[in-house]
Formats: sequence, structure tokens, C-alpha cells
Amino acid sequence: MMEPSASAPTSPVLDLLRQLYESLLSVDEGAVATYIPELAKADPNGFGICLVTANGTIYEVGDSQLPFTIQSISKPFVYGLALEDNGRAPVLEKVGVEPTGDAFNSISLEPETGRPRNPMINAGAIAAAGLVGGKSLAGRLKRVIEMLSTYAGRPLELDEAVYRSESETGHRNRAIGHMLRNYNVLEGDPMEAVDLYFKQCSVSVTCRDLGIMAATLANRGVNPVTGKVALRGEYVENVLSVMASCGMYNSAGDWIYRVGIPAKSGVAGGVIAVLPGQIGIGVYSPRLDARGNSVRGILACDELSRHWDLHLFNRPAAGKSTIRRQFTGADLNSSRVRTAEELSALRTSGGTIRVYQLQGHLTFSTTEVVVEDIIQRFGEIQQLVVDLRRVLTLNEGACRLFWNLVCKLGEGGKRTLFTHSDRHSLLRRYFKAKLGRRCDDLFRNYEDNDLALEACENRLLAELLPGRRIDHRVAVAEFELCAGLAPDEIEALASCLVRRDFRPGDTIISVGERAEELYFLARGTVSVVLPVAGGGTRRLATFSPGMTFGEMAVIDRAPRSATILADTEVECEMLSLERFEGLQRSAPRICIQLLTNLGRSLSQKLRKANRELAVLE
Amino acid sequence: MMEPSASAPTSPVLDLLRQLYESLLSVDEGAVATYIPELAKADPNGFGICLVTANGTIYEVGDSQLPFTIQSISKPFVYGLALEDNGRAPVLEKVGVEPTGDAFNSISLEPETGRPRNPMINAGAIAAAGLVGGKSLAGRLKRVIEMLSTYAGRPLELDEAVYRSESETGHRNRAIGHMLRNYNVLEGDPMEAVDLYFKQCSVSVTCRDLGIMAATLANRGVNPVTGKVALRGEYVENVLSVMASCGMYNSAGDWIYRVGIPAKSGVAGGVIAVLPGQIGIGVYSPRLDARGNSVRGILACDELSRHWDLHLFNRPAAGKSTIRRQFTGADLNSSRVRTAEELSALRTSGGTIRVYQLQGHLTFSTTEVVVEDIIQRFGEIQQLVVDLRRVLTLNEGACRLFWNLVCKLGEGGKRTLFTHSDRHSLLRRYFKAKLGRRCDDLFRNYEDNDLALEACENRLLAELLPGRRIDHRVAVAEFELCAGLAPDEIEALASCLVRRDFRPGDTIISVGERAEELYFLARGTVSVVLPVAGGGTRRLATFSPGMTFGEMAVIDRAPRSATILADTEVECEMLSLERFEGLQRSAPRICIQLLTNLGRSLSQKLRKANRELAVLE
Repeated sequence: MMEPSASAPTSPVLDLLRQLYESLLSVDEGAVATYIPELAKADPNGFGICLVTANGTIYEVGDSQLPFTIQSISKPFVYGLALEDNGRAPVLEKVGVEPTGDAFNSISLEPETGRPRNPMINAGAIAAAGLVGGKSLAGRLKRVIEMLSTYAGRPLELDEAVYRSESETGHRNRAIGHMLRNYNVLEGDPMEAVDLYFKQCSVSVTCRDLGIMAATLANRGVNPVTGKVALRGEYVENVLSVMASCGMYNSAGDWIYRVGIPAKSGVAGGVIAVLPGQIGIGVYSPRLDARGNSVRGILACDELSRHWDLHLFNRPAAGKSTIRRQFTGADLNSSRVRTAEELSALRTSGGTIRVYQLQGHLTFSTTEVVVEDIIQRFGEIQQLVVDLRRVLTLNEGACRLFWNLVCKLGEGGKRTLFTHSDRHSLLRRYFKAKLGRRCDDLFRNYEDNDLALEACENRLLAELLPGRRIDHRVAVAEFELCAGLAPDEIEALASCLVRRDFRPGDTIISVGERAEELYFLARGTVSVVLPVAGGGTRRLATFSPGMTFGEMAVIDRAPRSATILADTEVECEMLSLERFEGLQRSAPRICIQLLTNLGRSLSQKLRKANRELAVLE
Repeated sequence: MMEPSASAPTSPVLDLLRQLYESLLSVDEGAVATYIPELAKADPNGFGICLVTANGTIYEVGDSQLPFTIQSISKPFVYGLALEDNGRAPVLEKVGVEPTGDAFNSISLEPETGRPRNPMINAGAIAAAGLVGGKSLAGRLKRVIEMLSTYAGRPLELDEAVYRSESETGHRNRAIGHMLRNYNVLEGDPMEAVDLYFKQCSVSVTCRDLGIMAATLANRGVNPVTGKVALRGEYVENVLSVMASCGMYNSAGDWIYRVGIPAKSGVAGGVIAVLPGQIGIGVYSPRLDARGNSVRGILACDELSRHWDLHLFNRPAAGKSTIRRQFTGADLNSSRVRTAEELSALRTSGGTIRVYQLQGHLTFSTTEVVVEDIIQRFGEIQQLVVDLRRVLTLNEGACRLFWNLVCKLGEGGKRTLFTHSDRHSLLRRYFKAKLGRRCDDLFRNYEDNDLALEACENRLLAELLPGRRIDHRVAVAEFELCAGLAPDEIEALASCLVRRDFRPGDTIISVGERAEELYFLARGTVSVVLPVAGGGTRRLATFSPGMTFGEMAVIDRAPRSATILADTEVECEMLSLERFEGLQRSAPRICIQLLTNLGRSLSQKLRKANRELAVLE
């Protein structure tokens, strides 16, 4: 073993990418495109690979920052813009989505309608360019470049030399433009659409740009590096679909079969590949095969897919991984400290409260697992808590199932409490639309799990222990810590106590203070809270009349470890450390009884904490 | 609200399926296939839908158990069998994977090689039937029927009447057979392959069967109801690929665009659709459109996809959801109970121990997130624990990244401990193949997290506190509970203690016993264990010399809540409850000091437990 090193090594992902890069460097088949003079100038040995995760981590090797023109890779992006500008149906009217067995520059119009077969062949791409909104050609070009720049996360520019070269030699594309005008697929001046097409193809990008652009499609249209929306999520599936079925020209079936990642190539040597939800890949190598695809680009995607198991259809079953944890009100309690009688009732009957902590992405399939589990336990459940804190996204399929479930529970006299649903506005909107003004009845949101659980417990305890007093004054003899003391001992203890009153919100104990007294709570409730990083506080415990607080710091002789606030009007009896030490000498039996009771109370709390640790772990 | 009801209601998923069923019942376009007389006998109004999750939950409505013949839906399944029998390359030599723009019964052979374009058209399906292994036609048929039965989870049978009808009218398919023989795509008697094809098409299934068969493909080839393997996982992606690109005949592009779920239809009215990792769908409705697809079948898939957001490419980013939790050795400790000095060292320096608890499916993309996080913290980490307990599957892409990471950590003088890797044999095999005999050095597997964490702590503490004694005899004066006692008080206490020795493995305390004494541990270590449902025990705590155990039950006067075992040779000093009560009268100061120390120890444990609860929650 070497000496420990503190500096971070390269990432294993980058290492694997480098190995791939090295192994493909020796491939020198294929030739640089020469159909326009500017492209022929590219260095045939240029080679870069960039892999960007849907979380925005970028891995790049080789000439990943060398500029070249985007060419046909612009097609899926401009098609996405056309969808946003017009909606799905009007675009489908003008451009089909069926693969052709033909080459990239084939005209491939449907015989009767003149509709191009798909937006990945030139005819379809020109038709899509004609569908980009904007008052003038300049305005439309500006929108296209801005859109591509949002995908790339930096301002992209036109390569004027390539554009002039394209424009001078683009007679075939002009012919296509006129043909599309003839069939009214293009409206207005067809040469404007053709010119926009030449320009979109001449936008200068790097391999790194392509990686980020691909990752933006993998991330449902949101650039994972900048967080900006490049394409509305609902159209991402359409763009990826045409890439999957028509992206690799006349080898689409083979591509999906072997590589299984929707992709698109350009004649300048670029390739993008998009694995939805996971990664985007950009490759640059200008040597092309007979079909016009980058030779190393194809090989890189192929190797990545096989060696890293990336095939689209290679998916393990979602399983029950959406349920992070589930437990009942008998397994785990809220931080409201309960009396022994209450605790016993909760351990016996808390099983009717069931908490589901969910995580990840809630879609139809992952939500079905949860809903089915709840339906299976329908008879046991009286109160359901659905904790959405760790849910990353939630789609309409999930909302639909939740709505249906909550209604069924409501009809069965059971109630549902959501926590952290404020982060999922779709769910709230969905419930609101269904419920109208009744929303708060069926759709209860709690700030956190602890409060929701306490609400469930309170309701259950009110049913089980109807006679229990919750807001009364407790006499010294009734304090939990005084169990086993004789009347004269109670009297002796009481004479050592000092009464203190607090108003709601008052600070009784501050974190960090010296601990000089323990408190008996005679009336009201108090809560132990800790400040939380990022502001706010977290509740650790809430005490009711008869209970003791502040005792741990007194025993430890440590500074106060948390703040204690009055929730209500509060009356306390305070026993100072000094008085307690006096008692040790004057009335050791009282002290022994108090310490024994304290030990019992701590033991019970520790047992409960250990039980809860076991549930959580 | 209605009265609480204990009986389980129908599932919301079933309700939604019923709504869909009702809404499509009125659709009466299309006509039953009549090209063979037997098919024409079907009731045109028959309609069933069955949705099966990749976990094996079945939802079915309508005529889901009505038998009909599988027809072309057999094609992807037999293609899968051909792949298993021959491997990918030999099959690709005989049958392509490119979509055709032609109808299902077109001959579509490649002009030069005579290779059928894909296995979903009749020519390709007959070629695939010719690739099924077996000595005789009867043997091959038996294998095909067994294979289909494994997918369905019940023994399927031939519908002889349909078979005879197919066979009598199948001249076009015989012509295809001879043409394939002419090009040597079929070898041997071509009529045997054609006959097998007729027979595979005549297997009788129900809509429920189709749902389960589709779910088997969704579940990587494993029937989720029976758990039996119907197709090796590595070929599932190929079968789904040809379904996606060629499954819906001449509308494959449109299907992926609109519905986005690989599918296959048959002329008897069946349709299957497979959403990888999520669900399988089977629909039956014999009215066909002009392309030979079930009208309601298509509509059902279309509606399901749109309303339930099922499109293949509609995938949220995987995010960091693979990391269930991460913490350091400063946040959370093993159940080895530590001295105050050790605890303080762990709180200060435990940050160099980092635990990653992972969950779900580890693929390249989900593992990348973990590896990147670790690389970012490379400088901080000295010991890494990777907990695989909640990992459902782990593929080779993940193994590759882990291997690379472990090597990098090793080179940096850092060590990696895996827990629960015994459930992931692929990882062990991968590491073993890379390491040879060095395996145990770099690849340490621990039974659980707690043991791995303890091993890390022990190593860290040995470095930080080199002088600390871990296996020595502790005198009464040194017991934690005796802090603050004067020498004469120690002597008085010692006279009340009874020495007891134990051998490794001895039971010191049994769960459920009456608690009549507390123990001071003078030498050796003891562990508190609880029996676990399903056998075995779980360790709650391990104590070292100088510590007290068994005190909680004494204070509570409750029966023992756990069993305590001697890990090593053990010497204890036992204080009986009776003696302790005697001390309360004769030497109250000793009792007060013991109880105060006990309170302090319980307080510290409770604080630690609460801190850990916060970390875990």
C-alpha cells in the first residue's frame, strides 16, 4: 500500500472514458465529409468524448472543446421548438414520424400529401424549421440560436464560413424547399425556411456542448448544469421518439437493437446519444462511414452501451423501492412525551396508525406498489400518514392513484394525512381541482411527520382514554418523580420548590446555559427545540403536566443541550441544584427516591429510543 | 363520511382499468379476422384487459379469461428462444432487425441475401421458428409450448381446430418457407419450420396469460408470479427492441411516438405491451383495423399510456436516490459501548469513517452518483463502508465502477468495507476475478453495518489512543459507576459484591428473567442480543471492562428485556437488589453517588440515542 494521499484522484468514470478513448484512437476508417469545402478542412484525427449525467456531472476526454458545426444534430432540437410553438397535432400534420429505409438527404415525401416521412431527414427538418415561430427570418434564427444555447448552457454562434459554404452548394435542399411549398407543407417563402435550416446546421458547438445538450434531453428538458428549461418536459418524449425510430437514418432498427440509446449524428462528425433519466453523450470525430455517421462516434456509443450496460430496455423491476420505510403508531411515537398510561395505549392500539415514508419518483408504476400495499392493509388502518419528504418528483399518474385512494379511505371512515406535500404542487392542484372547497377536509398537509404522527396519536388517545385530563394543574404529589414518597416527604420536597410561570412562547431554558435547576411541569406544555442549519427549529420533545424536564443537564453537570419553550401558559416548580444537594444531606431517602424515579424515567426513555432506532435502522 | 368499514375496497388501479374498459366498450369499429374460418367464429364483442406489474400484481377486467389463439404475438417469444438457442450473431445472420414500411404478411426479404428484414413479419418469424433447437419437429414444438407456458405461468395448449384451419389455408406462408430455403435462411425441410410456425400461432391463451407474459418481459425474463425464468435477461433487450422498432407493422414510428411502449398484436385480437421494469399489459378484442391490429387493443394501450404517463421516454432523472443515507463515524457509532474518552475521540475524528447505505438498482448511472460523491470527499475519507443491504440488483457496469473505486482508495492507503455483499454474487465474482488470491485484502465483506462500523472504529481508536487498554482487569475503584466514591465507600461497596466468572458464549442474563442484580464488568466483553424474527440474533450493545450492565431492569423492576452473552472469558462483580436496598439504609451517600452516576450514564446514552435518531430520521 502507498502512503495515504489527501488529494482526490481522477474519477473511475473518467478513467473508463479515457480507456475507451485510447482504444478507439487507432481506428482510422472513414473519411471527412467533403460535400462542402469548409467541412473538408476538419482534422480527420480530431476526437473527443463527453459524458454528462442527468445530475449535471461532466466527464470529458480528448478534443472535447474543439469547435465544429452541429449540422443534422440540430434537427431534433429544432423539431422540439416546432412542437413547443405549434403543439403536437399541427406539427404531425406537416411532418410524419415513420422511419424510412432511405439515406439522410432523400426527399422521402408521402406520395399523396407531400408530408416528409420524419423530421430527421432533410425534408422533414426543413419543414420543422418552417414551423418555428417568429415574425421575421432574423427573429426565428435568434430564437433557434437562443434555444440551442439554453441546451448547451452557453451562448452559441453561427460559423459564417460554413453557412456560406452550405448556402452556396445547397441546391438539393432548395429543391426540397420548393417541393414542400408545392404541397403546402411550407407556407410563405420556402427559401426562408431553407435558409433557417442552413443556419441552424451551421451553429458552432463543441463535443462538451453536445454532451450537455444530450443530458438536457436526458433530464426532461432541463439543463442539469444551469437548471434552465430548454424544452417543456411533455415534448421531450416526442423528440426522443423520433431520435429512436429515425435518428440513425437507415439503420434505426439495428441501432436500437445493438446500442439501445436514442441518438443523432451530424456530417461534421458529431453524435449525441440520450439515455432518458440517466446520461447524455456527445462524441466528435469527423471521419464518416458510408451512411454519413461518425465512425468513432458510432463505436464509442456502441462500446459505452455494451460495456456499461446502458441499453434502454435493460431495466430491472422497480420493486418496492418507493417505500423507504413503513411503520405504525405502535412502533414509533411522535416526540410528544406520553404518560405511562398513554404509552401503553399507543403500544396496544397504535397499529391503526400507519406511516408510509416514500422516496424517489412517483409514477403510475411506483405508486401502484404503495397503493396496493395500503389496500391490502385496509382493515387495519384507521389513520394513514403519507410522507412525501424524500419524493423527488410526482406525476399525474401518481396523483390520480392517490386521489382515488384517499377517497376510498374517506369512504371507509379513515383519514389520510400528507406531510411535505407543499413541495409537490401538482398533487395539491390535482386534489384542489377534484375537491373544490372541501380540500382541507380530505387533503391535510402537515409540516413534518412528527406533527402528523402526534395528531394521529392525539385522536387515537382521545378515543381510547376519554377520561384523561390533558390541561389541568398537577399537584406536587402527582409529579412522576414523586412516586413512592410519603406525604411528609412530599411536604419537605415542596418546601424546596420555587414556582415559576411562563407565557406562551417564553424561553424557559436556553441552549448553552449552565444547568442549575430541574423543573417539574405543573400546568401547560413545553417543547424542547434545537436550531436547524438553514434556520428554523426542530422539535425534540413536548412535555405535559406532571413530567420533569431539564434534569439531564443537572445530572451531567453539562451546559443545556437544547432550548425549552413554553407552548402555552405554563406553571413550573423549580428545584435548584443547591437545594437538591442540601436534600442529599438532610433527607437522603427523598433523594434516593427521586434519583431512582429519575433512573426509571431515563431507562424508559432509553428503551423507547432504542426501540425506535431498531425501527429506523 | 360513512361508517368505518373493515373490508378491503377494490384497488384504485382496478377502478381506473374498469373506467377504461367501460369507456372503450362502445367502440365497435373494425372487423373480426376472416382469413381462416376458425377465427371468424370469435364473438366480435369480446373484450378484456389485464395489467400485471413487474412485481406480479394482477389487475384484470372484462373477458380476461376467454381463450383465443396467440397468433403473431408468439413471434417475439419464439425469437427470444431462437436467441437463447443460437446466440445473437447467428440469429442476426438469418433475420434482420430493421422495420419495413410493409404489411405483416409481406415477404420483405433483403434483395441479395434473402434475409427477412425482421422477426415480426411472417418471413422473419418462420426463419426464427427454423432456429429453434430440438431433434424433431415434435421436440421443437414441445420446447416452444413449454417456453410459452413458462411465460404464462400455466400449461398452455394448441387449439387444434385453428391449427388445421391455418395449415389448410397457409399457402402464402409455405411460399415464404420455400423462398427462405432457397436463400439457405432455412436449412433442412422448410415445411417443418412453417408447420412449427402454424402451431406456435395456434397456441391458446387468455388475456390474463398475455398480461403475465408481458410482465415477464417487463421483469427481465422472470415470470413475476411464479418466479421462473422464461428468457435469459441478456436477451430481453433484444426481444423488446424488435417489438419497439417492428412490432406494430407499418406504424412502428407512430406507435413509439404516441404510445411509447413496445408492443405486439395478433390477428385473433390479442395485444401485448411491455413497459420495461414496470408493467405488462394484455388486451383482447377481436375487431381489427385495416392494418390487422385490434382496434380496442390499440386504443387501450394508447389511453393507458397517455392517462397514466407510461411513455418509455418519460423518465425523471435518477438523481441521488441511490444513496439511502450517508453518515460518518462521528455522527453514528457502532453498538460497541465506548468509554467517555473513546466517545470523545470518535466524535472528533470519526469523520474519517464514512458509511454509504445504498438502495435500489445499481447500474452505471446510479453508481456513478455514489462514486462521484466519494471521489469528492476523497481527502476526508480514511475508511469507507458500503452497505448493500437494500440494494435490489447490481449489474456489471456497477461492479466495474466499484472495482475501480476500491483500487483508487487502496492506492491512497484507504480501505473499503462492504456489508451484505453476500447477496450480490456478481460483485464478489467480479472482484475475485480481478484480484485472484488477494481478494480478502481489498474486498472485505461484513455481515452487517454495525460490525463493519465497529471494525473501523477499533482501527481508528488504536491509532488515536495507542495507550488505551482493552483487555485488562478493572478494579472496583475504576468502575464507571464508582466515580466520586471515597476509598472507604469503595471498600464498603466491594464487600457487597459477589464475583462471577463466565466462559465465552455463556448466557449471563436471559430475556424474560426477573431482574435481581446489576453487574460490573471487571474483565472481558459481553454483548446484549435480541432474538430476531426468522432466527439468529441482533446485537444491541457490547460492553467493555469498567462498565455496568443489567442496571435498567433493576431500576425498572421489569423483567430482563434482552439476553446478555459473554463474548470472551468474563469476570463480573454482581450487586444484588437486596444488597443495594440494604445500602440505601446503611450507607445512603454511596447509594446517592451510585444513582447519580447511573443517571449520568443513562443520560449520556439517551443523548447519544437521540443524536442517532436525528441522523437516522
